[in-house]
Amino acid sequence: MTTGVRRRMGVEERRQQLIDVALELFSHRSPDEVSIDEIAAAAGISRPLVYHYFPGKQSLYEAALKLASQDLAGRFTEPREGPLGARLLRVMRRFFDFVDEHGPGFSALMRGGPAVGSSTTNALVDGVRQVAFEQMLRHLALEPPVSPRLELLLRSWISLTETTALLWLADRRVPRAELEVRLVHDFAALAAVAATSDAGLADLLRRVLAEEPEDSPFVELIGKLVALAP
Amino acid sequence: MTTGVRRRMGVEERRQQLIDVALELFSHRSPDEVSIDEIAAAAGISRPLVYHYFPGKQSLYEAALKLASQDLAGRFTEPREGPLGARLLRVMRRFFDFVDEHGPGFSALMRGGPAVGSSTTNALVDGVRQVAFEQMLRHLALEPPVSPRLELLLRSWISLTETTALLWLADRRVPRAELEVRLVHDFAALAAVAATSDAGLADLLRRVLAEEPEDSPFVELIGKLVALAP
Repeated sequence: MTTGVRRRMGVEERRQQLIDVALELFSHRSPDEVSIDEIAAAAGISRPLVYHYFPGKQSLYEAALKLASQDLAGRFTEPREGPLGARLLRVMRRFFDFVDEHGPGFSALMRGGPAVGSSTTNALVDGVRQVAFEQMLRHLALEPPVSPRLELLLRSWISLTETTALLWLADRRVPRAELEVRLVHDFAALAAVAATSDAGLADLLRRVLAEEPEDSPFVELIGKLVALAP
Repeated sequence: MTTGVRRRMGVEERRQQLIDVALELFSHRSPDEVSIDEIAAAAGISRPLVYHYFPGKQSLYEAALKLASQDLAGRFTEPREGPLGARLLRVMRRFFDFVDEHGPGFSALMRGGPAVGSSTTNALVDGVRQVAFEQMLRHLALEPPVSPRLELLLRSWISLTETTALLWLADRRVPRAELEVRLVHDFAALAAVAATSDAGLADLLRRVLAEEPEDSPFVELIGKLVALAP
């Protein structure tokens, strides 16, 4: 509703606006390179007023990263219906949407550094990883605690998705759609490797594959691997 | 040579001693938890004298991490002789030796945080990753620049080895020898997945596999995967 005069914002509303402005700036440049002056200018307020809402640069960064972390964690939510391969692929697409939207902000967060490498931001990142881990358990219809080998498989694959996204962001030379499918295939491949030394994992893998349809990314992978053989 | 009196150390010798003492302490506790007082006590000198050699805590940390990084990078050197699988396995063993020796120091370095998440330490870590990447190219008999898909494969596998080592360090529930083999298998599996959408990579993979002997970790993996099939 436009009234013609600039409406005064409430405290929470103003804080939210500053966070939105910061996230928008971080989607083009690293948080290290964005000054409070620029955030103030983009929000149309004075620098001292920014400090009224956030006591320091770090606290605004942390608030922005907290919101972005919640957004990212939310994108892992996927109904536990239908085959696993298709579910994982949908999650990978939403994950790359997030990475694409946040660009330099995502890189800075994951790589650490002066503005973001604090214990608070590290805890936010670990929190998102934990949500990803718990969602994977849900999709596999498992409850914690799980075997150390399964935990290692899930957490190392989650880390692989982060690295793949960071490497993609650096130059975007490989199409993201290819990497979304690739990461689903990578999960199957790493699970198969881990299953060669863990009978429980081998059973789990057989159960998952038995439920996959003909057009599953897992079935597609097996076909392609067979075609690769000399 | 013991003379019975405490010999005066030269500047470089004293700096080296302090670095050695710091690395020893960091192998039991995170750098964040180790104070300059403790380092001084362990070196048998006064706190002000430590500051004489290193202007601040951060500079001693960085010197220690620099030495550790050089040590780690050196462990990737492996003669380009014999089958690739066996070479990678030897490198993985030396990598886990390093991780095992440095424990909390390695975790802190890779995870960032107050004491270590500076641009200097991040650059040291990236330097080690770059050495690992170049060594992998050497073992594959390739020269940079390489295709984006191959670069992504190598860098994401290097990241997977870091994550796997960090997860192992956290509770050491999976035997490290198993993980050393696992990571060689993971490389083959990720390469096979990447090769399904890259003809050049498929050729490279066929060339590598053709040179592997019967007791190769790659051949072992194929056997185990076949046995896994229903």
